Amino acid sequence: MDVCIAEGKEWKMIQIDWKNASAEVIGREHGITLEEMATTLSKVDKAHRAVLLQWQAGQLGYANLPFRTDYRDMVMNLVQKYRGSITDLVILGIGGSALGNIALQVALNPLNYNMMSDRRRSGPRLFVIDNIDPCLLGEVLLLLGRRISKTLFNVISKSGRTAETAALFMIVRSILHKRLGEKFAEHIVAITDPEKGVLREMAAADGYDTLPIPPDVGGRFSVLSPVGLFSAAMCGIDIDALLAGAAEMANRIKTSPVEKNPACTLAAIKYLMLIEKGKDIQVMMPYSNHLLGLADWYRQLWAESLGKSTKRDGNANRIAPTPIKALGATDQHSQIQLYREGPNDKLIVFLQVNKHPQDERLPDIDIPALDYLKHVRLSKLLEVEKVATAYALAQSSRPSITIHFDAITPENVGAFIFLYEYTTSLMGELLDIDAYNQPAVELAKHATIAVLGGSADKQLAGRIKQFTSSDKRYLI
Amino acid sequence: MDVCIAEGKEWKMIQIDWKNASAEVIGREHGITLEEMATTLSKVDKAHRAVLLQWQAGQLGYANLPFRTDYRDMVMNLVQKYRGSITDLVILGIGGSALGNIALQVALNPLNYNMMSDRRRSGPRLFVIDNIDPCLLGEVLLLLGRRISKTLFNVISKSGRTAETAALFMIVRSILHKRLGEKFAEHIVAITDPEKGVLREMAAADGYDTLPIPPDVGGRFSVLSPVGLFSAAMCGIDIDALLAGAAEMANRIKTSPVEKNPACTLAAIKYLMLIEKGKDIQVMMPYSNHLLGLADWYRQLWAESLGKSTKRDGNANRIAPTPIKALGATDQHSQIQLYREGPNDKLIVFLQVNKHPQDERLPDIDIPALDYLKHVRLSKLLEVEKVATAYALAQSSRPSITIHFDAITPENVGAFIFLYEYTTSLMGELLDIDAYNQPAVELAKHATIAVLGGSADKQLAGRIKQFTSSDKRYLI
Repeated sequence: MDVCIAEGKEWKMIQIDWKNASAEVIGREHGITLEEMATTLSKVDKAHRAVLLQWQAGQLGYANLPFRTDYRDMVMNLVQKYRGSITDLVILGIGGSALGNIALQVALNPLNYNMMSDRRRSGPRLFVIDNIDPCLLGEVLLLLGRRISKTLFNVISKSGRTAETAALFMIVRSILHKRLGEKFAEHIVAITDPEKGVLREMAAADGYDTLPIPPDVGGRFSVLSPVGLFSAAMCGIDIDALLAGAAEMANRIKTSPVEKNPACTLAAIKYLMLIEKGKDIQVMMPYSNHLLGLADWYRQLWAESLGKSTKRDGNANRIAPTPIKALGATDQHSQIQLYREGPNDKLIVFLQVNKHPQDERLPDIDIPALDYLKHVRLSKLLEVEKVATAYALAQSSRPSITIHFDAITPENVGAFIFLYEYTTSLMGELLDIDAYNQPAVELAKHATIAVLGGSADKQLAGRIKQFTSSDKRYLI
Repeated sequence: MDVCIAEGKEWKMIQIDWKNASAEVIGREHGITLEEMATTLSKVDKAHRAVLLQWQAGQLGYANLPFRTDYRDMVMNLVQKYRGSITDLVILGIGGSALGNIALQVALNPLNYNMMSDRRRSGPRLFVIDNIDPCLLGEVLLLLGRRISKTLFNVISKSGRTAETAALFMIVRSILHKRLGEKFAEHIVAITDPEKGVLREMAAADGYDTLPIPPDVGGRFSVLSPVGLFSAAMCGIDIDALLAGAAEMANRIKTSPVEKNPACTLAAIKYLMLIEKGKDIQVMMPYSNHLLGLADWYRQLWAESLGKSTKRDGNANRIAPTPIKALGATDQHSQIQLYREGPNDKLIVFLQVNKHPQDERLPDIDIPALDYLKHVRLSKLLEVEKVATAYALAQSSRPSITIHFDAITPENVGAFIFLYEYTTSLMGELLDIDAYNQPAVELAKHATIAVLGGSADKQLAGRIKQFTSSDKRYLI
């Protein structure tokens, strides 16, 4: 097992191995030479200094979260209030108000958590309603049935104006009011802007318990705020350990020189692969079902933060990585054919777990064709398949890197989250874009409001109508 | 609601609308003109004739499946035997022996099916163990506990030599033997080659019930064979309706002229977008949680069938579409920023459901900012958001097409599956590749066996070892 030494302290967290993305292994056309790395690191160092300045000036909102004990205390106060009496917790949120919650739950609780008996679970069942598909909401309400009287609904929206979350919440609030009368407000916890916005006003009027979303933290960077911490703690996840891991990574990033800095190294690899080696698609492929939620979380973090055009030298720059997720070993039987033999446009980032909490050893096997599996541990087979896949990719000059998790612990998950958030900030600097906005999302929001008649812009509604009317020349 | 007329019969199934991929809407650089479509359709027609010849000669294995009543009867015989006495069904399979099963279950049973009480469900709980992550297997076994005596394990592997499935099965078989003694074989149904292979031999020796995988059907084309039908029927899905829908689509494809042929149109759009318009990434984005499993199924179908190099004019041709999945409306808050403002390298294929089985209407709302949501049905909001997203993409010259499902029924799911399978065959012809093999997957398989000491090629094991030994220059 790999052990990192950081500042004299034995440090077992997460470690990046980029050998299989190196020119030494896969050649200079697709791989990175040590010289290229050194040159790029000095560029990354400048970006790092710029982000550090924002951080030191208190302008890098998410970077403060691992150290905000006040948020942690507010969360735990509410958790203590509700945890004993609640059987089900239903989150109403979307995007950054759901993906972090799902990622923590999938990583740190059993995969079948919701199917376990009330006695065996470490907290209430957790449902995340992060879509307006009527079936998604309807089927959860049907399943809850009478348990709704022991259900807590956790609505998460900074402004309260996110259409999907607002719609879901209006419906749920109305149902709760009908079913539970004036006590309905006791079944709602709102996580929203600490001072302003529609949801904050409703909370004050109706009297819900609330938790704050820090105004200077965007949705996709909010998992270590009350947004992600409340549901995690309700479900028995050790949020102190989660924050401690994130804090340790934050300190490591803050104090390490660029060549020993994991965020700087990761950013340098991803930037070089994107700009110099044509790797427009950056795959996160955990060899662990528990880490698949983090890959979904990464998809949003990367796509919304970096999927932007910029004006460079007067031209729109359209270079941006497309993040996708895959699952090892499963997707060896789905995606690896393409990754090896299709276009060489992908960087594969494996997540590998060194120690698994449970394991099974294969028995004696009398079948010659399967003799090689005899007495092998399942975790060993998983590890070997990952190495074999990295080997096969390298034989086709396809780059991969591996991020090793010593084990799937709250500390390591927290560290990984902070590592990727900070790497995203560095990528924003390197690509010369604002990593914290999402301007291209606005038009569809306006269009939705216009079609539903809520906009003064009647012409917009008219223009969109042509997108619903079918045209026989294009129908089959 | 859209109604198709096919050969004089009223036909309500699935319909393709490609207007928002047309040059008329998004311009000639990224959109398709009617002339381009006509030219490409005549090319597709040649491919179609070639595939039809294979079909008529009985060489297009999967195309026979909708009509194989013998398979249907074998499946239903076993379903009748087990359905009354079994509480849990556990599939051991990977890739094509799992993705179709998951897709059918997610589409056609409630999303929370496994959490419903034994009385309310339409069959046993269904678990699909499609990875060798020890947690995935271990946590299901833990959850089953004593219910293992009412659990049926369904191992699916054509050869029986797929390492992951073989490993899982060896472990489960050993556990069953310990827990249930000689009766263990009554808890296993093997789906495998009808005559040969390791699993067929074990089934004969141990005495499991078996179902055949047609020798001429590859894993990713096998969902309408016993591979997908058995678990579906066990869980109460109407497989007759599923096959009928597939058969209707098969007949429609077989008899329609090219310009009215849904598979030919779909292939023409996807081919033109890939070859002429630089859309290397082809996203499937259902606006429905129930259809998300089909998007995962598509990922394998497309990546393994089409992710191949060919020798054209003596040069390796690396053009292949990368299939990815997204979920509407959820991923409007995750991926749409990138899809609109990042590189214009994506074709978005929306799946839209016209009629939802359940719905909720928003109540009165006193909040001016949310007034536009008042009394809106959730299904209407979902539909409007999809149209708004297509509009926003089109404003940025990003192409999209929509496949409309009249409703999510077994018939329509069957029709969609056949449509995509046949489209894949057409794409294989158009790209001049063998859509039915997966040669690039072999090396990792050999490498796995070599590392575990099961190969005569000791040098291979040595070469791979260097991929596990860490090198400090590349570690951080």
